[in-house]
Order: sequence, then C-alpha cells, then structure tokens
Amino acid sequence: MKFARFKTSANEVARLAILEQGKLYEIEGDIFTDWKKTGNEYEVSRVHLLAPLIPNTIIGVGKNYVAMGEAKPEHVPAIPVLFYKPVSSMIGPEDQIMLPSGLEGVKFESELAVVIGKKASKISEEEALDYVFGYTIANDITAPQFFHPDGHWMVGKSFDTFTPIGPYIETELQLAAVNVQAVHNGTLKQDSPLDLMILKIPYLLSYLSNVMTLQPGDVFLSGSPAGADFMAAGDTISCTIDGIGVLTNKVVG
Amino acid sequence: MKFARFKTSANEVARLAILEQGKLYEIEGDIFTDWKKTGNEYEVSRVHLLAPLIPNTIIGVGKNYVAMGEAKPEHVPAIPVLFYKPVSSMIGPEDQIMLPSGLEGVKFESELAVVIGKKASKISEEEALDYVFGYTIANDITAPQFFHPDGHWMVGKSFDTFTPIGPYIETELQLAAVNVQAVHNGTLKQDSPLDLMILKIPYLLSYLSNVMTLQPGDVFLSGSPAGADFMAAGDTISCTIDGIGVLTNKVVG
Repeated sequence: MKFARFKTSANEVARLAILEQGKLYEIEGDIFTDWKKTGNEYEVSRVHLLAPLIPNTIIGVGKNYVAMGEAKPEHVPAIPVLFYKPVSSMIGPEDQIMLPSGLEGVKFESELAVVIGKKASKISEEEALDYVFGYTIANDITAPQFFHPDGHWMVGKSFDTFTPIGPYIETELQLAAVNVQAVHNGTLKQDSPLDLMILKIPYLLSYLSNVMTLQPGDVFLSGSPAGADFMAAGDTISCTIDGIGVLTNKVVG
Repeated sequence: MKFARFKTSANEVARLAILEQGKLYEIEGDIFTDWKKTGNEYEVSRVHLLAPLIPNTIIGVGKNYVAMGEAKPEHVPAIPVLFYKPVSSMIGPEDQIMLPSGLEGVKFESELAVVIGKKASKISEEEALDYVFGYTIANDITAPQFFHPDGHWMVGKSFDTFTPIGPYIETELQLAAVNVQAVHNGTLKQDSPLDLMILKIPYLLSYLSNVMTLQPGDVFLSGSPAGADFMAAGDTISCTIDGIGVLTNKVVG
C-alpha cells in the first residue's frame, strides 16, 4: 500500500492519503496506528504532493555501497559511518533544491529510505524488518565543502532543502527487486541493486536499536550507490525506485 | 521567569508550570507563544520534574572552551565542530543515566543549553540573542569509545539517557554571570565562566541559522568547559548553573 501527504491549495493544512489505481483516497488518523478513509478522492495531478511524512529523526549511513564489480571490504567496520540530517532540511517531491550562495560542489545522492513503524530497542537482525513500516526515496544532498577537516559531516548535510523525501511510502516493497537510481538532467547516473550494499538494512537497524530507541516516524537513509554527482542551478534530479515512484526536484541558485 | 515540566504521578500526561517563590504554578498552552495559569499550584518536592521541554532538534558544539589561563586559538575555525544528539537520548533531572554494557570511558559534560524561541534563518550575530527563549542546563554525555576513527561522533553521542536536560528554562539569565559547573560525587570538576568559550553563543547561532532554519524548541548545547571526566555506575553528577538550578542524575550500570 502507498501512503502520501498532500495539499490542494497552499494555505490549507496537509492531508493524508493512500494511493490506489492512480488515485489519492484521503485518510484521517495516524498512518502508524489507526486510520480510515474520509470518503474524499483526488487526482494526483490536481494536488501538491508533500513529503509523505514529517520524520521524527533522520539518520543516514555513509560509504555503504560498492560499485558494480568492486569487491566488498573483508571486514565489517566496528562502527558504521552514521550521521543525522535535521528535519528542517526536508522538502517534498515538488519542491526546489536551493543551492546556498557560495556553495560549490553540491552532490545529489539517491537512497532507499526506511520508515520505522514501531518503537525499536535492542532488536536483532532477524526481527529488524518487522519494525519497518515501509520505504520511500530520499535525496541525501551533501556539500562536502562543509565537511569539517576532522570528519564531522554535520554542516555539509544540514542546509535547508538538502533532504527531498517522497513521493510515497510503500509498505510492501520487495527489497530483492529494488534498484536505486538517479537521473540527472536526463542521464542515468546511479543504478544499483541492494546487493551492492556493504551493511544490509537489518544489520544497520539492529545496530542502531542497540544504541538508541528508534521511534515510529524515524527515517533511515540506507546509503547511496556509486555515481552520485555534482549539481548546478537549473539541473533536474530524479531519484527513482520502481515500486515506490520518482522523486523529482529542480535545483535553483 | 523559570519554566518547568512535571508529573504528579507516573501515568499522567506531562504538565507545564512556571516556578515562582519556590512553587510550581501550572500553566497551559505553548510556552513559546501563548499560555496562562490554570490556578493549580504544586510544591516542587511533591512532583516528578521532567526535562523542561521536548526539544525539536538538539545541536551541540565540540571543543569550544579553553582551560583557565590557556590562550584561545588565534583564528576562528572555518567550520565549527557541530553535531546532533537525538531527542531519544533525552532524560529529565530526576532520571538515571544508564551505562550500556560493554561501554567504557563514558564522560559527563556540563553545558549551558540555549532554547530557541523563534524561527531563525540567516540572522546576524547582533540580533541572535533576540531569538533565544531562555537557557537550561544539559549534560552532554559522551562515549568516545564509539567515535568513528574518521571523526564521526554520532554513535558516541546517541545512546539512550545520554542527554539529561533541566531542571528549568530561565528566560532572564545574565550570561555575564554564568559559571558552568559539574560536581562529580561531591567534587567540583568543571567550573568555568563563558569568557573561556572560544566561539560565543551569538556567533554560533548566527552561523547555524545561515545553514539551517532554527525552530522554536531547538536546543543548542554550547560546549563543555575543561574538567569533563569519566563516570562509573553508582556515581552522581550535578551540573550546576547559578540562576538556572542543579541538574542531578545518578549513574547506573
């Protein structure tokens, strides 16, 4: 099932919906616990789609894919490269990515985003996927110019508009069939199955849950495949995962 | 004025209050916008004090104090050492710090915490303090053992119970008079005026607001003075700032 959030006009509050046969059926309630249809339906083309949820916390993992044909590291790292992105950096599937002035070398990074559905503390790898509500797409936009020389990525990951998320949360995604893709001005730049991930999603969710209690609405960006590239004002980036949809954002200066 | 959050029994919802002449006067509404007294009053000693707010985002800065008598760096760093702590790591002034098994060398770090009161984007240093709602105390508990060798602090900062906050938000704190102190099992280990800060609060809020839009309820931990030390199960840590109060937490294994 696909969940969405949308508005029909700029000034109204955000509404929730499920997508069925290409139509949005409005729902009310909490997508994680209890909801029901309101009876209202909308054409997707006539609404403004928003990020499908307001995340509780956004967590990312770095350096988590090998390129096609490249060997995986022999040893699992003792500590994964984990980082946060602020919720203030989130935008929706029809919003613009704004490059702050003076920023050079800003990259797009298409990623499969995992939406946590249940409180998760000290869960095992085997049970980890039971705590997943569904999956969406994120563009983990990054300004390496603002990485601290001692390794802190906070500033380079945090600019406003640097985390497009959407368009839908799919609750029944077949992970084995997923290709994470990015199309940059019409050219396919990223295209990778999850096989090329170094640390798998169940491992990472279990690891994280042994550090912190994960909450419904936490969003985990599971890493970006080879091919992430630099963007410029005027560009269009479409992050695509068949089975979820296409997250397209234009870049403005 | 001092704001608090409390419960009178474990199962009830959190209540808000202001503290006047040592008594809690319950309020209802939003502390940042509009609130009024309910007419109920409580003795502090008869309630369970909670962290005075649920933060929107928790941001910290590292390496931000020199020791007494130590020279400050000649140049302001191009990028400050900034990091996030998850809201899931927050506990209140009467909660226990839990040391996860297998963790060695966990440090307390007493800090002045700045509570943002208004949406702040691209503000100047001169106007930065106008966006501050008030100040509280935080213990930025840290497990350096879980810092990634490439510099990422995420895991070492994120364990559950690693961010005690409280007891009150003081809206009229005189920054010039602040000493940030920590008392560890009865011994004063940290004791520093804000003069020893390297990057001052207005500079850091302005810097941050040029990266991201700060929101009401964001909490900025302004760095920890010299003297932060390791803790063990059974210890008691009291982070103290005269004018705000004492944030005391016991450590359990």
